[in-house]
Amino acid sequence: MPQNDDRVLSDFDAATAVRRGEGGALVADLHPGWEVGGGILNGGYLLSVAGRAAVLESPHAHPVAMSASYLRAGAAGPAGLAVTPGPAGRTLAHSTVVLSDSKGPVVTVQATTATLGDGEVEYSTPMPQVPAPEQCLDMAANAHLAAVPMHLPGLTAHVQSRLDPATATWAMGQPSEEPVLRAWVRLADGRPADPLALLTFADVLPPTSFATGRMGWAPTVQLQVLVRALPAPGWCLVEARATEIADGWSDEDYRVWDSTGRLVAQSRQLARTARR
Amino acid sequence: MPQNDDRVLSDFDAATAVRRGEGGALVADLHPGWEVGGGILNGGYLLSVAGRAAVLESPHAHPVAMSASYLRAGAAGPAGLAVTPGPAGRTLAHSTVVLSDSKGPVVTVQATTATLGDGEVEYSTPMPQVPAPEQCLDMAANAHLAAVPMHLPGLTAHVQSRLDPATATWAMGQPSEEPVLRAWVRLADGRPADPLALLTFADVLPPTSFATGRMGWAPTVQLQVLVRALPAPGWCLVEARATEIADGWSDEDYRVWDSTGRLVAQSRQLARTARR
Repeated sequence: MPQNDDRVLSDFDAATAVRRGEGGALVADLHPGWEVGGGILNGGYLLSVAGRAAVLESPHAHPVAMSASYLRAGAAGPAGLAVTPGPAGRTLAHSTVVLSDSKGPVVTVQATTATLGDGEVEYSTPMPQVPAPEQCLDMAANAHLAAVPMHLPGLTAHVQSRLDPATATWAMGQPSEEPVLRAWVRLADGRPADPLALLTFADVLPPTSFATGRMGWAPTVQLQVLVRALPAPGWCLVEARATEIADGWSDEDYRVWDSTGRLVAQSRQLARTARR
Repeated sequence: MPQNDDRVLSDFDAATAVRRGEGGALVADLHPGWEVGGGILNGGYLLSVAGRAAVLESPHAHPVAMSASYLRAGAAGPAGLAVTPGPAGRTLAHSTVVLSDSKGPVVTVQATTATLGDGEVEYSTPMPQVPAPEQCLDMAANAHLAAVPMHLPGLTAHVQSRLDPATATWAMGQPSEEPVLRAWVRLADGRPADPLALLTFADVLPPTSFATGRMGWAPTVQLQVLVRALPAPGWCLVEARATEIADGWSDEDYRVWDSTGRLVAQSRQLARTARR
């Protein structure tokens, strides 16, 4: 499949494509649609681009741990990816990836790559009980019915979600006590999820403070994503929850399961929240 | 307090001291006692040293997010710390810290610093119910009574712990189903905890697989620590748990509370486990 022909690449692969430019440096073209409002690109999307660069320069096939510092808001357009390889062995390899736009570095990522297998699960925490996707809420299709003003960011056209009604009462004007959101997600064009797509899924929901009725932007400061397994085809279940919101800071934990109930990714981010 | 006079520094401050060497480069002297077995230095200890370097070169007072890639096992002796500043603003600053020994880089850290205040806690998850430290198990004092062979790493002489009996049955020969460990911890010489010490506490317990009877080394691949508040004096409660152990990989989540029940730190690491 040619790398630079958008007609044969999936939407996600086109948006996260990395190629060698002049002099052998890696370059990307950040797509404007993967934004969370005001043209600001989703942090998980940027991490997927960085992950693709890390894998390109690694003897291993998959990103397994990616830790990103978000230095400046990312905007669409040409971007450079500088990959500095670290120690590499039979099981895993380390590298640093810096994604930059014309004004300078946007994200710095510590990347660990490995090749995920299907080895035995020795211990696992079960997936929560959630209604099937068909019984969950399609916010993008029904935003006009919401009790609160809903701005749908561009990202929702590229990643579809179906929100668990138990964590959607805020959209009906009844905020919850708990900052928890759960949704089935999948790529809008049907491309099956893979480890690079999981890096986006691990930051794809609105801020969990939405569930408590606080609907402001919560910029990510640092984000760590762990990819635990290759996902089966179909919807993934994403659950995001905050452990503590204090003094203008919030953490958010994500767990992502595939359609078989296997844990395929986890993430934790530190974000800034608007003071009340 | 003079930086390089061990007679007036606390044990932790001496072990994590960072000073300017020749040419202005930052140097440290990694102390052998902060090891987890076989002379291998604890990952949290290395992160405390890197955190001190990050704060030295920052306009802000505290490490709030530290994401480390562990490139090689760290051994005692002279170390260099290269801090590359990133964007800095009124609220926070980013930097990269590389800790190296004579053979090359040991740990690469994405550091975010800020100045923690005592702002309002808007939402929090309560601390678990645990017996007082006096009712918990001092493994270091009682290793000879354990039902399983106990090697006490050097670290236990510098950080004291009192294990919650509910998560210590494995030491009596009765492994649990759940990979969870809980313990009160404090610095052995009584120095109060602070954000730099919390970086050590967030990796200070044995691997959680010990609780299920599997007592092998689980080297850390990547570790992210979030410091959420300045701790009150006294014991801190540390709870570590694994979410999924599969295919030679384990995650471990730590939550650290101070003696008032305030969440002061969180961490998540990806580690390699010995296959069964």
